[in-house]
Amino acid sequence: MVFADRLAQAVQRVGNPVMVGLDPRWENLPDSLRRDGDSPAEKAQAFQIFSCEVIDAVKDLVGIVKPQMAFFEQLGPSGFAALAEVTAYARRQGLLVVLDGKRNDIGSTGAAYADAYLGEQASGIPADALTVSPYLGDDSLTPFIEVADQRDAGVFVLVKTSNPGGKLLQDLVSDSLTIYQRMADLVNAASAVRIGECGYGSVGAVVGATYPQQLAELRQRMPQSWLLVPGFGAQGGTADSVAAAFDAKGLGAVVNNSRGIIFAYQRSEYAHFAGSKWQNAVEAATKQMIEQLRTETSVSQL
Amino acid sequence: MVFADRLAQAVQRVGNPVMVGLDPRWENLPDSLRRDGDSPAEKAQAFQIFSCEVIDAVKDLVGIVKPQMAFFEQLGPSGFAALAEVTAYARRQGLLVVLDGKRNDIGSTGAAYADAYLGEQASGIPADALTVSPYLGDDSLTPFIEVADQRDAGVFVLVKTSNPGGKLLQDLVSDSLTIYQRMADLVNAASAVRIGECGYGSVGAVVGATYPQQLAELRQRMPQSWLLVPGFGAQGGTADSVAAAFDAKGLGAVVNNSRGIIFAYQRSEYAHFAGSKWQNAVEAATKQMIEQLRTETSVSQL
Repeated sequence: MVFADRLAQAVQRVGNPVMVGLDPRWENLPDSLRRDGDSPAEKAQAFQIFSCEVIDAVKDLVGIVKPQMAFFEQLGPSGFAALAEVTAYARRQGLLVVLDGKRNDIGSTGAAYADAYLGEQASGIPADALTVSPYLGDDSLTPFIEVADQRDAGVFVLVKTSNPGGKLLQDLVSDSLTIYQRMADLVNAASAVRIGECGYGSVGAVVGATYPQQLAELRQRMPQSWLLVPGFGAQGGTADSVAAAFDAKGLGAVVNNSRGIIFAYQRSEYAHFAGSKWQNAVEAATKQMIEQLRTETSVSQL
Repeated sequence: MVFADRLAQAVQRVGNPVMVGLDPRWENLPDSLRRDGDSPAEKAQAFQIFSCEVIDAVKDLVGIVKPQMAFFEQLGPSGFAALAEVTAYARRQGLLVVLDGKRNDIGSTGAAYADAYLGEQASGIPADALTVSPYLGDDSLTPFIEVADQRDAGVFVLVKTSNPGGKLLQDLVSDSLTIYQRMADLVNAASAVRIGECGYGSVGAVVGATYPQQLAELRQRMPQSWLLVPGFGAQGGTADSVAAAFDAKGLGAVVNNSRGIIFAYQRSEYAHFAGSKWQNAVEAATKQMIEQLRTETSVSQL
């Protein structure tokens, strides 16, 4: 089944579009996981245990996780090995895994990245989709899209990112179109020729929750593309600000939350979980986000 | 010593600006290195041996190597571990190592990538510099530049890439400036406040050899930035096409060659090395590139 349809299925199975970002940070881990020492190998082991325990806490609530490669790479080879274990574990639990690596390169080098991460047959760390950066242009996206096609995997191309500085390049206007509009047109054209039964294709776009107006505009501009919406929670995005990302059936977008969920036990509003397992706060925060989306968006139609 | 000056020193030590790209590809490896099997771990072992033997062949001829992370990541955790070994080996041989990963992300995630790869104290794979993609904007470059500053490391930001499709985004004109000109101004401004004794700063730019006119323009536009020039050799760049990248003293740019050097034993012009060690062809191709640059560019002044 093509990735676009697998994504729709993952969302429909749990009745919500929440994606849990696996961004392990040593200083935020529960004390119980930092007892064994802080060598890179020990930290990597803690990252792996932490991520898998987050997965256990959310796997019956959500359909997708997004490991952030940077935090695993920060620990070197043992961190990279932990990322492979976490990714495989999540997939064994029936979750879709979108690796957030923002990779890109030209020609056969781009194809090597694609081969590394896309699909069950990937040679590096098999995952369901990968985030890709578009600065190198259309011919740098082609190898990712082609490999994704061959393997029923997906790509999410950066279009309009959630950070304040994203506008420096993305909001520039050339020939009456912004850069992000041009990238959006490229992404949607690629998806439009690869439509699954869900009505979307497998070439998606990253569009931040922190710019609700552009999110609404880009939803219209990319009617055939899944949106991956980061920036919910810690970065300021709310259910209200992502409402425009969904179609009338509650499909078309997945909304990522990393810190707000995985480190929920450090949030004052979950202080009452202090006496119990830290995963209880993770579970409660996930349920709260799901409830917010169901109350304020068309996700209620799922 | 700041990275910009270490780079100048590396170039002056050998009297040339050649950077050897370490892009191991299984199908191109010498037969002798493919005998042991083709599991990911066996391939990774072959990549490591191959890369270290290339380093041995060129270490007295050039000052810099650039491992392409994609090809190592393609082999998963064992490939990533091989990359760490190769990087450490090159640095022990006195070579500067620029990791070509085209990484980028926002805020603390960008800082995690920077911490992973920049400088002797890097937590992941310690290297001298890293290539960085700018689509996410100025605040996504800041963490890389700050960490590089703290650790006497460098970054090379993609400005004008060597592939045909690079123009899709990079050549767009907004408010009478192309995107690549705007990125160039950003890079040079960052270097201008970090000038080393060599006259350049440690925030460099990637500018392809395949667009000689833009290369000349960007040399003028970024007078304080080192240029990393890919695209020599297999992609069509020649000594003549990169001549404008150098200042009058032969400094200011390093020129990468990957396939043309490391797989020289497969080039028809080096067929006469067939009976001897494959490294002899690698060495001959390196010397030929150095000679071409010395004959046709200001590199002769080094």
